[in-house]
Amino acid sequence: MTEQKATNVTWHEHKVSRAEREKIKGHKGAVLWFTGLSACGKSTIANEVDYLLNQRGIHTIVLDGDNIRMGLNKNLGFSAEDRAENIRRIGEVAKLFATSGTIVGTAFISPYKADRDKVRAILAPGEYVEIYVNASLETCEKRDPKGLYKKARAGELKNFTGIDDPYEAPEKPELVLDSDNKGIAELAQEVVAYLEQNGYLKA
Amino acid sequence: MTEQKATNVTWHEHKVSRAEREKIKGHKGAVLWFTGLSACGKSTIANEVDYLLNQRGIHTIVLDGDNIRMGLNKNLGFSAEDRAENIRRIGEVAKLFATSGTIVGTAFISPYKADRDKVRAILAPGEYVEIYVNASLETCEKRDPKGLYKKARAGELKNFTGIDDPYEAPEKPELVLDSDNKGIAELAQEVVAYLEQNGYLKA
Repeated sequence: MTEQKATNVTWHEHKVSRAEREKIKGHKGAVLWFTGLSACGKSTIANEVDYLLNQRGIHTIVLDGDNIRMGLNKNLGFSAEDRAENIRRIGEVAKLFATSGTIVGTAFISPYKADRDKVRAILAPGEYVEIYVNASLETCEKRDPKGLYKKARAGELKNFTGIDDPYEAPEKPELVLDSDNKGIAELAQEVVAYLEQNGYLKA
Repeated sequence: MTEQKATNVTWHEHKVSRAEREKIKGHKGAVLWFTGLSACGKSTIANEVDYLLNQRGIHTIVLDGDNIRMGLNKNLGFSAEDRAENIRRIGEVAKLFATSGTIVGTAFISPYKADRDKVRAILAPGEYVEIYVNASLETCEKRDPKGLYKKARAGELKNFTGIDDPYEAPEKPELVLDSDNKGIAELAQEVVAYLEQNGYLKA
């Protein structure tokens, strides 16, 4: 035990830096913030990007309705206040993942510019990659996989984005995906290409 | 573009499994839940474990007051309700990190057994490693690096754990660290040894 005590005398507090976390991962941490109307393809594209990156040994995670609304944000509803808090918490969690060197994809409608800009503001320059999944309301309403648009049109769902609540399209997103005219596989490749071309996939 | 469209026809949704995330990291995801009185050494030990693991190429993160109280939980105070919500949110975020294959250390007093047990309950068996950093109130009060015990004794801080609010010691923690008699370096090594012996450091 004498040796251990001697160790303690000269012990210094260690904190792992962001660079050290990124070094063992071999790439940068970043937030891929997918935004767009319900049924525009956000979650599917985010999960496909996640798959493509994982296949290449990139460390990733996806935050979407599946793991957030049933967990961290299960005590939030859809009032204006709760919607803002929903996005705020997701932004903070995304920041923690980016700090760990992870590339985190988030797939939420996030209709309000002010809420998205707050997320951008808590992240470092270049760390927030806003990806506008641009599909027309017509396209989304045609897809309507969960029948939500139908319910919203019937007045059974209130404050539904695109119907009776606004979607504020990004003004200067890092990337726009044309989800009216291209398929998931192609759009996911566009995201990966963007990351590659902008140096995210190396440390 | 014809080729891309053909691709879409046969496209299947990909979801990355937990196993696939752990495979590229080379080890399991887990939550190291450090609990104990203020100034018992939780955060310092958690950060030292983080350092030791990072040096070995293990993918880690630490959640502590520094990155949680100023971020995700900045809208929470110290009422009974807010304390419970504080621990609940930290548990949910820790779960997300474990899902990503990361070993996440959390360093919060987390004085109530019920709150800790709720975190254990949302995680898979073996995923939650409760680490009781056991230091006597006397030891912690002597250290008192931020002068908090002094303020609590003077009545300037209310509901202070160990003074006028209870600390419910873990009954069956996975690991107990003797912070009265051992130093940070030795205790951090004990945590790493536990993880090694219990198979956490391989995929």
